[in-house]
This record gives sequence, C-alpha cells and structure tokens, in this order.
Amino acid sequence: MRVLGIDCGTERTGYGVIESDGRVHHLVSAGVIQTSVKSTLGARLQEISREIRNVIARDVPEAAAVEDVFYATNVKTALKLAHVRGVALLAISEAGLEFGEYSPLEIKTSVVGYGRAEKRQVQVMVKSLLHLDEPIESEDACDALAVAVCHATHSVMRGKLERIHA
Amino acid sequence: MRVLGIDCGTERTGYGVIESDGRVHHLVSAGVIQTSVKSTLGARLQEISREIRNVIARDVPEAAAVEDVFYATNVKTALKLAHVRGVALLAISEAGLEFGEYSPLEIKTSVVGYGRAEKRQVQVMVKSLLHLDEPIESEDACDALAVAVCHATHSVMRGKLERIHA
Repeated sequence: MRVLGIDCGTERTGYGVIESDGRVHHLVSAGVIQTSVKSTLGARLQEISREIRNVIARDVPEAAAVEDVFYATNVKTALKLAHVRGVALLAISEAGLEFGEYSPLEIKTSVVGYGRAEKRQVQVMVKSLLHLDEPIESEDACDALAVAVCHATHSVMRGKLERIHA
Repeated sequence: MRVLGIDCGTERTGYGVIESDGRVHHLVSAGVIQTSVKSTLGARLQEISREIRNVIARDVPEAAAVEDVFYATNVKTALKLAHVRGVALLAISEAGLEFGEYSPLEIKTSVVGYGRAEKRQVQVMVKSLLHLDEPIESEDACDALAVAVCHATHSVMRGKLERIHA
C-alpha cells in the first residue's frame, strides 16, 4: 500500500510518501512545506493545502496518516497546529483516502520499538527501515515518514487480526 | 460592504451575511451547517468547507470574520474547533476576502455595547440591528451575524481613523 504521512506545523509541514507491505517499506517522496512567517495564517493554510493536494495528485497514496494533536505541550501552539491539521484532514477526506491518526508514543513504538525514543533515534530507524544511504535531513519530513510507516504497519496488522477473527 | 460572519463548530457551524455601511446593517442570508455526529472529522470538515464555499459563491461577500478560538474554556473542544476554523480560514483566504478575527468581548461590546452580555441579549440586538421582524432562531447563525456586524463596524471605524491620521 502507498501511504502519505503528514507532520503538521504552521511554519514547516513535513510530508513523506512510502510504498509498503506492512513489513518492508520504500521511500516514494519526502519534503517540507515551508511557509513564510510574514504571511497571515490564511495564506499559510492556503499554501499548505495546495502543496498537500499536489503531493496526493502526484504520488497517488491510498492512505494518509497524521499525528494526534492532543499531545502538544503548549495550548497556543496546539491550537495553531489544529488549524493546519484541519486543512490536512480536509485534503485527505476530499481525496477519499483511508485515514489514520496516531499518538507520538504509537509512532515511536512502531518505528523504534520504544515509545520514549529521541528524535535522533527516529531518524536512524527511518533511514534503516526505508533502506536509505543517507538519513532524511529534515526532522519534519522524517517525522512524516515515521507516521506513514506507523500507519502501514498498523494497517497490515489490523488486516491480519481481522482475518484471524473472521 | 458585504460581510460574512462564521461561528465555527464541529457539529453546527453558523454563518450570516450582512450588507452594511458600518452603521446601518441589513440581512442578506443566515443559516447553520449541521454535520452528522456519526461522520468522521474529515467528512465533517469536507461538508463545512463545501457549504462555506457555496455561501461565498452565492452571496459574494468582500470580507469575512470569525471569533478568536483562544477563548474557549475546554482545550479539547478548542482543538476540535480550531480544525474547523482552519478550514474556514482556508476558504476565506482562497476567495481572497478581507479577514477579521474578534474576541467574544469585542463582538458583544460591538453588538450589545456590553462585553459580558448574555446570549439572549445578543439575539435581541441582532434582531434590532438588522431590522428583523422575528429574532434569528438559531444561536449559531445569530452569533455568526454578530461577528459580521462587529467586523463591519470595526472596518468602517478603522477606515475613518486612518483618514483622520492621514
């Protein structure tokens, strides 16, 4: 399955697309949508929306996944993030993609096997899981790929469990 | 000027369009976008986005205004609301409308002349300010009209002040 992961942020929104059978994962694309700090929130949302739609149109994922917003430490930051997340969910829903949301704990456990893993460890594991020669430099793109890997793993596992219980 | 006011909510999003010179206001349209509690957040955002775009296309406002989200009492509610607000801001920005955001205090002061006014008082004043025979029944549509009136008043006042200081 092809999965788009999105790491929402008002200044930088990371995205990553992978091809995966739930165990073996390959990188399709990854990048960062960088918006100007001088822009209004509306203009930023417009840019983020446009870019996410472009990625969906170009890489044609079947599913998309984002991190839960309910774990941000700062309320004001979380509220801004939720605006971006709303716009991301709209693009995902309009494209008719399967959707998943995961806590940071679930994402880290899925990628590193340890819920309290550090950013650096996530980066190393994303590089290894996607068979890359170099680590993904951007932390935001890397986090987005981690969400995508988490969704692919969960999705395939859910499918297996459903078949066992069927 | 023609102003669209939006009162964001995940279950019910109110909207109201007025024609105003900053002192005298007239109702153009008002309504509520009701989404199913059974729908996913993505599906709800899609419906809200579609309806807001429809209202903008039909009534052609020059400006749009929404309430600040930073005053909600419950963080979880505020975060859900911010998703809807993100989608509303996207529609406003894509349509190229002038944009304003106001605190509940500013809105109530503008409409009732008193920042701690109750819902009922806002309803009575919106009816009076828009020269309506009957009050607007829906609280959400009424709140949306109040934001629109607040923006029209502020916008004209700002214009006057700018001319004085020019």
